[in-house]
Amino acid sequence: MKTEVTLGVDIGGTNTAFGFVDIDGKSYGSSSIPTKPQNSAADLFARLHPEVEKLFATIADTHVLKGIGVGAPNGNYYRGTVENPPNLNWGVVNVVEILKQYYNLPAAITNDANASAIGEMLFGAAKGMKDFIVITLGTGLGSGVVVNGELVYGSDGFAGEIGHTVYDPAGRQCGCGRRGCLETYSSATGIRRTVMELLASSNEESALRNVSYNDLDSKMIYSSAIAGDKLAKEAFEITGKILGLKLADAVAVTSPEAIILFGGLALAGNMIIDPAKKSLEENLFHVFRNKVKVLPSGLPEGNSAVLGAAALIWNEIKK
Amino acid sequence: MKTEVTLGVDIGGTNTAFGFVDIDGKSYGSSSIPTKPQNSAADLFARLHPEVEKLFATIADTHVLKGIGVGAPNGNYYRGTVENPPNLNWGVVNVVEILKQYYNLPAAITNDANASAIGEMLFGAAKGMKDFIVITLGTGLGSGVVVNGELVYGSDGFAGEIGHTVYDPAGRQCGCGRRGCLETYSSATGIRRTVMELLASSNEESALRNVSYNDLDSKMIYSSAIAGDKLAKEAFEITGKILGLKLADAVAVTSPEAIILFGGLALAGNMIIDPAKKSLEENLFHVFRNKVKVLPSGLPEGNSAVLGAAALIWNEIKK
Repeated sequence: MKTEVTLGVDIGGTNTAFGFVDIDGKSYGSSSIPTKPQNSAADLFARLHPEVEKLFATIADTHVLKGIGVGAPNGNYYRGTVENPPNLNWGVVNVVEILKQYYNLPAAITNDANASAIGEMLFGAAKGMKDFIVITLGTGLGSGVVVNGELVYGSDGFAGEIGHTVYDPAGRQCGCGRRGCLETYSSATGIRRTVMELLASSNEESALRNVSYNDLDSKMIYSSAIAGDKLAKEAFEITGKILGLKLADAVAVTSPEAIILFGGLALAGNMIIDPAKKSLEENLFHVFRNKVKVLPSGLPEGNSAVLGAAALIWNEIKK
Repeated sequence: MKTEVTLGVDIGGTNTAFGFVDIDGKSYGSSSIPTKPQNSAADLFARLHPEVEKLFATIADTHVLKGIGVGAPNGNYYRGTVENPPNLNWGVVNVVEILKQYYNLPAAITNDANASAIGEMLFGAAKGMKDFIVITLGTGLGSGVVVNGELVYGSDGFAGEIGHTVYDPAGRQCGCGRRGCLETYSSATGIRRTVMELLASSNEESALRNVSYNDLDSKMIYSSAIAGDKLAKEAFEITGKILGLKLADAVAVTSPEAIILFGGLALAGNMIIDPAKKSLEENLFHVFRNKVKVLPSGLPEGNSAVLGAAALIWNEIKK
């Protein structure tokens, strides 16, 4: 009997990754193509289809394709659409309809953070949990909220925007047009901004004094912190502290068993988890104290977004 | 055929109200007894049982009892318990077990705000909605969050504590031991504190300058505001503004179709709804703007808590 797999597709602003995944989360090949964000969605899938077919041909003797899951910025699960993604020139487009031109199979779409949450539930750190929150710490801060074993999509399909809860209404300018959103502090971009603030406010010596804002990235800040750079360490402390403070508010809404940190900045491990956990505990309403775990992603680095997208459709098929 | 009813019991710090309710939310008699908060839970139910029997006797010819729902402070749905309620000398006690001594019927318990949310869903302003939040504005601020048509209990049964999300970490002292919780601003107690602040900070003439803190209640502030008292009006403006600001954060988590305001302070109607709605819109992440209704409770004043408790068990029976 052939092994059943789903196709996971993760659409990013630069590259679109894809791969085949079985119901246990085992990967069978993965690849990627350039997204070409200035082109249409139809163009992307027209280029993607032959590449998917080519990759599937290598496993077709022993595998059967059961469905397609897509993670994309501003992906809307209810409507099957991507709606005005900030980094793609797509407007509003029905991706599930486009997929039907190529495959007569179940298909679903959601945003990347929601896909990650389902990935963690099926294959990762949230296995067996019914109530948890996944926080993706990348360029921005995304989140996927799971309640009673189901992803929270809300009335419009856009629930789970913890990155746009407000830490300081008079604070940092956010890409969304407001000020002080959590993601302007706790994200790969946020920690760069915090480093700049610390370079301005303190006299602490730091290797980061030789790096421009545009050259700075969160890996560099992590390496400096690991090498003992006090300013870099403080940047992680502040990033985790603000994250923990706002997560305490989110816990008061859904009372999760765990919060799982995912994405580039989360690779800093305890450097970000420890201050986030400490601040969370300090700021929690007493009934929630000493209950909420803060965990790193349980998905393999590098392929986690494809696993999340594949998990999305596995979760539908299993229903 | 006899009409099926459930018994709703609302346990307050002073009185315990109860009554019978059919599946359409129609009430068949209600009554109350003193809670005697210094006594045990067993004592309350021993006194309650004959009163319930007496009331049921008046409708027993034409009605049959199908279950019992209880709303109580710190009620835990998962465990059937009330756990260390702030205003009852009960410690941790299993209420569902106690009820089994009297009735061999399905029984369930939750806190009053969650019961109200189920009441609104079955009988009130949230009929037909799958994603909404009920905010109870009483002495404190309680909340019940519904996602995908189900109440969010979270991992421990205590989800929905929006009153204890933090507006200002350096702000007003809260009963929970922290500072600046939303309920210290937006509740019947919160608006009294705001009046005191305004009496201190402004020179505005106000009828409320003749009232002591202990004598002041939210009805009085409402009457003054209706009579044109500028300071009282401003107190409602501030109360609604802070409520809207923190509700914007909650909307970012669960993306509800509506937020329903319930309880004593909510009886002020547009005096509180208008500034809350305005502030909510101003503070929402753009994808949620012009989508979220802010509505008054659709449950009849006076009997709403009993209806909520009855709805809790109707919701279980219907599953």
